[in-house]
Amino acid sequence: MEENNEKKLTELSQLGEFGLIDRITKDFEIKNDSTIFGVGDDAAVVSQRECELLITTDLLIEGIHFDLTYTPLKHLGYKAVAVNLSDVYAMNGTPKQITVSIGLSSRFSLEAIEELYAGIKLACNRYGVDLIGGDTSSSQKGLIISVTALGEAKKEDIVYRHGARENDLICVSGDLGGAFIGLQLLEREKLVFMGNPKVQPKFEERDYVLERQLKPEARGDVIAELKKLGVKPTAMIDISDGLSSELLHICERSQIGCQVYEERLPIDVQTIEASEEMNYDPTICAMNGGEDYELLFTVSIADFEKVKGNKLFSIIGHITAYGSGANLISRDGTSVPIIAQGWNSFAQ
Amino acid sequence: MEENNEKKLTELSQLGEFGLIDRITKDFEIKNDSTIFGVGDDAAVVSQRECELLITTDLLIEGIHFDLTYTPLKHLGYKAVAVNLSDVYAMNGTPKQITVSIGLSSRFSLEAIEELYAGIKLACNRYGVDLIGGDTSSSQKGLIISVTALGEAKKEDIVYRHGARENDLICVSGDLGGAFIGLQLLEREKLVFMGNPKVQPKFEERDYVLERQLKPEARGDVIAELKKLGVKPTAMIDISDGLSSELLHICERSQIGCQVYEERLPIDVQTIEASEEMNYDPTICAMNGGEDYELLFTVSIADFEKVKGNKLFSIIGHITAYGSGANLISRDGTSVPIIAQGWNSFAQ
Repeated sequence: MEENNEKKLTELSQLGEFGLIDRITKDFEIKNDSTIFGVGDDAAVVSQRECELLITTDLLIEGIHFDLTYTPLKHLGYKAVAVNLSDVYAMNGTPKQITVSIGLSSRFSLEAIEELYAGIKLACNRYGVDLIGGDTSSSQKGLIISVTALGEAKKEDIVYRHGARENDLICVSGDLGGAFIGLQLLEREKLVFMGNPKVQPKFEERDYVLERQLKPEARGDVIAELKKLGVKPTAMIDISDGLSSELLHICERSQIGCQVYEERLPIDVQTIEASEEMNYDPTICAMNGGEDYELLFTVSIADFEKVKGNKLFSIIGHITAYGSGANLISRDGTSVPIIAQGWNSFAQ
Repeated sequence: MEENNEKKLTELSQLGEFGLIDRITKDFEIKNDSTIFGVGDDAAVVSQRECELLITTDLLIEGIHFDLTYTPLKHLGYKAVAVNLSDVYAMNGTPKQITVSIGLSSRFSLEAIEELYAGIKLACNRYGVDLIGGDTSSSQKGLIISVTALGEAKKEDIVYRHGARENDLICVSGDLGGAFIGLQLLEREKLVFMGNPKVQPKFEERDYVLERQLKPEARGDVIAELKKLGVKPTAMIDISDGLSSELLHICERSQIGCQVYEERLPIDVQTIEASEEMNYDPTICAMNGGEDYELLFTVSIADFEKVKGNKLFSIIGHITAYGSGANLISRDGTSVPIIAQGWNSFAQ
């Protein structure tokens, strides 16, 4: 998909590593005062006087985390940045800088890499972050992307996973399960396409779930909204591996239990329709489908009036005492223990 | 080499991603006050009130940057950290924290990864840095290691590549070419071994150059020595791609020329012997062999008395006017233009 043979493409060996770095970084502007020196020396320099620094990193590997047969490189670049910024927001911080390292096999042309960096740049502009460094290398197989994000937060504003207390309300932003079912749709159409390349993919009225998978957003808007409401969550995590897995992280770190109501789970109508078409239970998609990059957070019951009825997030349950377990209350009132079905890349 | 079938090894799928993270990070202690929160949340938290923050990152890919047939995993872990810290020292800073992400194919056992992390831990202890985060993932092929290092420096102490001025002295720490010739030895013995696995490798009296390749050190001692001498370099870079390539970086960034003397190049006797044995010119090894991770720096001529005759570094030449080029003065007095022969991973 990244190879378009109609126009002449530039081989990376013509440019060399430094030529490539110059080419892909020249259009990035510095947007933050805290970025003292970006690309072009042994290390980047960042100033951080009044805030704490937040650091998070993700490694994305072709064939494991993404499939270039249906992932446009520009979307991939955007997503690689967004998923890291999501981790900074999940600490109640503001992302400021990123480094991006890439490993490339010889099948990638300069034009393909420029597409990837166009997506990285779009995300940098959308979220106001500076690209300040990285590394480029060849790889033996496929594309490897390693992103590290830096952010800032005042010490008293940082929200960890370990702060949830009994009776806190459990909230989740946006809706769940879309990214998972979007992936299943893409995988299905890929199989069809591989059987008969002339068949057109069936994606009618599925644009929302496809976008959830291919171009997720980091929920900085939710962080801003909470600040506006005067609400500091007691615990927070972003949903990368699935709601079940993240709930269990909060329970384990905070040494508490939780109760979540199936009927309260926010699921988009497209997610429901696509799930039913593909014989998935929408609740399972919402609980165990990963990559939604929504924020899961707990707030004190005293903040109920401030958070109720908000368009950006839903109250899905509450925190219970340690030892009571993590449970999903189904529509018929049955309590079902929540088990992490999150993605284990080593299991296959 | 990492697979030892005599004792039963633990498959990563038994542990899962979170089990693996717990296992490999549990023995790391926090050593720096600036590390507020390390592994175990969406992002790590670092405090940096009085200094600027330095950030650098490297991506190491099996088959491109290392060969596990002759690289012990413990050495590899150590080296992956050291080469990043080298970049922090090259800014005249002090490394404080690292993140380490790894991608692993299914052939790696838990025990193999523990070896890798034993080396990472050794480097963390040796250099006083904290492991504060990372990502673990499976890979389709081989081992991928992405390290990001954070360091600190007072704003007025930071040394960039762009500060060299005409008449400055050019200095280099340690000796050059050893890592390159060590690699050639390892590659030669690998070929012999592949032809006849019963042949024992010929490494007599080559321990120094092998160690230069397999377990390089970052020259924090040189930074400390310069501080003690009261010398702040005008420009500095670490030698990862070869002296020629790094000299050209300094010339380009500082907009100056340089003159380096062949007879002044510091080359260890083992490097000379191994070079001659393998029909390499030691000067070429010193100029163009990469991975020595020595520091190349320029100091004002006014500091000559302070830097002369130091055991930790050599004066190899001086900075000339912009436009005079970068030249090596050979033993017979001929001036030869310096051309970057540094490693271009895209060229093969």
